[in-house]
Amino acid sequence: MKKLVIFGVGLIGGSVALALKKAGHATYIVGVGRRLDSLQLAKNLGVIDAVETDVRAACEDADVILIAAPVAQTAGILKSIQPHLNHTTVVTDAGSTKGDVLGAAEEILGSQIHQFVGGHPIAGAEKSGVTAATTDLFMGKNVVLTPTANTSHDALDKVKNLWLACGANVSSMPADTHDSIFASVSHLPHLLAFALVDDIAARPNAEQLFSFAASGFRDFTRIAGSHPEMWRDISLANKTALLKEITAFEQELAQLKQLLNNEDGEGLQALFERASKARNQWAKTKLQ
Amino acid sequence: MKKLVIFGVGLIGGSVALALKKAGHATYIVGVGRRLDSLQLAKNLGVIDAVETDVRAACEDADVILIAAPVAQTAGILKSIQPHLNHTTVVTDAGSTKGDVLGAAEEILGSQIHQFVGGHPIAGAEKSGVTAATTDLFMGKNVVLTPTANTSHDALDKVKNLWLACGANVSSMPADTHDSIFASVSHLPHLLAFALVDDIAARPNAEQLFSFAASGFRDFTRIAGSHPEMWRDISLANKTALLKEITAFEQELAQLKQLLNNEDGEGLQALFERASKARNQWAKTKLQ
Repeated sequence: MKKLVIFGVGLIGGSVALALKKAGHATYIVGVGRRLDSLQLAKNLGVIDAVETDVRAACEDADVILIAAPVAQTAGILKSIQPHLNHTTVVTDAGSTKGDVLGAAEEILGSQIHQFVGGHPIAGAEKSGVTAATTDLFMGKNVVLTPTANTSHDALDKVKNLWLACGANVSSMPADTHDSIFASVSHLPHLLAFALVDDIAARPNAEQLFSFAASGFRDFTRIAGSHPEMWRDISLANKTALLKEITAFEQELAQLKQLLNNEDGEGLQALFERASKARNQWAKTKLQ
Repeated sequence: MKKLVIFGVGLIGGSVALALKKAGHATYIVGVGRRLDSLQLAKNLGVIDAVETDVRAACEDADVILIAAPVAQTAGILKSIQPHLNHTTVVTDAGSTKGDVLGAAEEILGSQIHQFVGGHPIAGAEKSGVTAATTDLFMGKNVVLTPTANTSHDALDKVKNLWLACGANVSSMPADTHDSIFASVSHLPHLLAFALVDDIAARPNAEQLFSFAASGFRDFTRIAGSHPEMWRDISLANKTALLKEITAFEQELAQLKQLLNNEDGEGLQALFERASKARNQWAKTKLQ
């Protein structure tokens, strides 16, 4: 790949740039973004080769355009690209939800939608900014691509090879399958952690409660320290799947309440055993 | 203290023994328990000075009796002690719930209830067994005691000094205050983690879901790997406070669902911000 354009050179965009440079997979990497100072920093750090403020110039001769900005900006970026998109450039993104991005891409790119591949690298939610970027952020991590029947083989191959060059495990699935998987194993846990901390923080004795919280609470609520704006956008983008997940969880809670109300020790132990066995099995095969 | 008797020489009982030996706080430590092999192991490891199978002999001249066996055995142990309990021995425990233990102690010890002090060290849920015991398990950790108006000053002082000698921060509060605090910051999070994993594990596509679970899921569900029997006992013992907590959490979830249904981005962001601010503030002042 000769020219890669990255919109949003933060943790994700910056780590892609560093990994592809190291792998010799991209000759020339151009950064585009809202904040010139952070792009300049990325250039000074050697993460990107050039800073471009003109979208038309950025798009010219680009092999791949990667949108790695906050998801709320994705549609606006696609709109800014569309008038300058030639017929060989492939466009992809790195957002945590895929149905909404695909819908926006279909609407904005129209007949050029075959050049678009949705993508989601599962890595690096804790830190942010280009200074946190590393060459090995995606090494051994999952990247999910969400091609459709309209996606060209060439576009899918280019995006797949980009992530393989970063050291990732790449899989493909429909956008709605992606969104329901991540609603259950990522978005719901985040919302539950936010909800628990918000519930406790609102109480008159919150200070006393927090003072007795220990290591179980620490790990359970770590993701409640995540970025509020990012999680607002993810929640809204994946609203339908997330509402389904919350409803399923409410049913699980209702079952727990019934077991407690009935003082059904056997039933409680059976539920805890199923969960504990599944969790420990998962940890054994997939500890990161 | 000349003679300390520990019922259940596992992680907690063993670590108390090691810490008190090191501090020079106990001259002679006797272990009592259901499993002779693990008591013998504790003696061979130098954690206790003697193994005793006869409860009457164990109780003779004991300054303090610490019950550190699984909570379901507490009432049975109190019953076995009661006929042999002289008028100077202090009895305490290390269970995670306190209202149930106090109720059992009042019923079983009768007029000698002033010799009993309920206790809960907040430490070491992950490992178990005497081989995991360490001298510094309680160093800087919280220990909550739950004396009543009936508790003798001497009994409270002796138990307080025992935990101070282990390096712990000791506080006292009514048993029901203890139980409602731990229902919210410990028992509820455990049940939510168990519920989430059980919900996912029961689905036809569980394997696929688990394969995309990452570090957020890992930390959120760590406590779902906890001991099912222990959590059955804690749940039943703290049923009333726990049901209250689940109901409060259901209301919080209902609020989240409404914000999602209304696509109320501002409301969602405000909730996430309150939680994230509180979580990060807690971590800053109390990271362990």
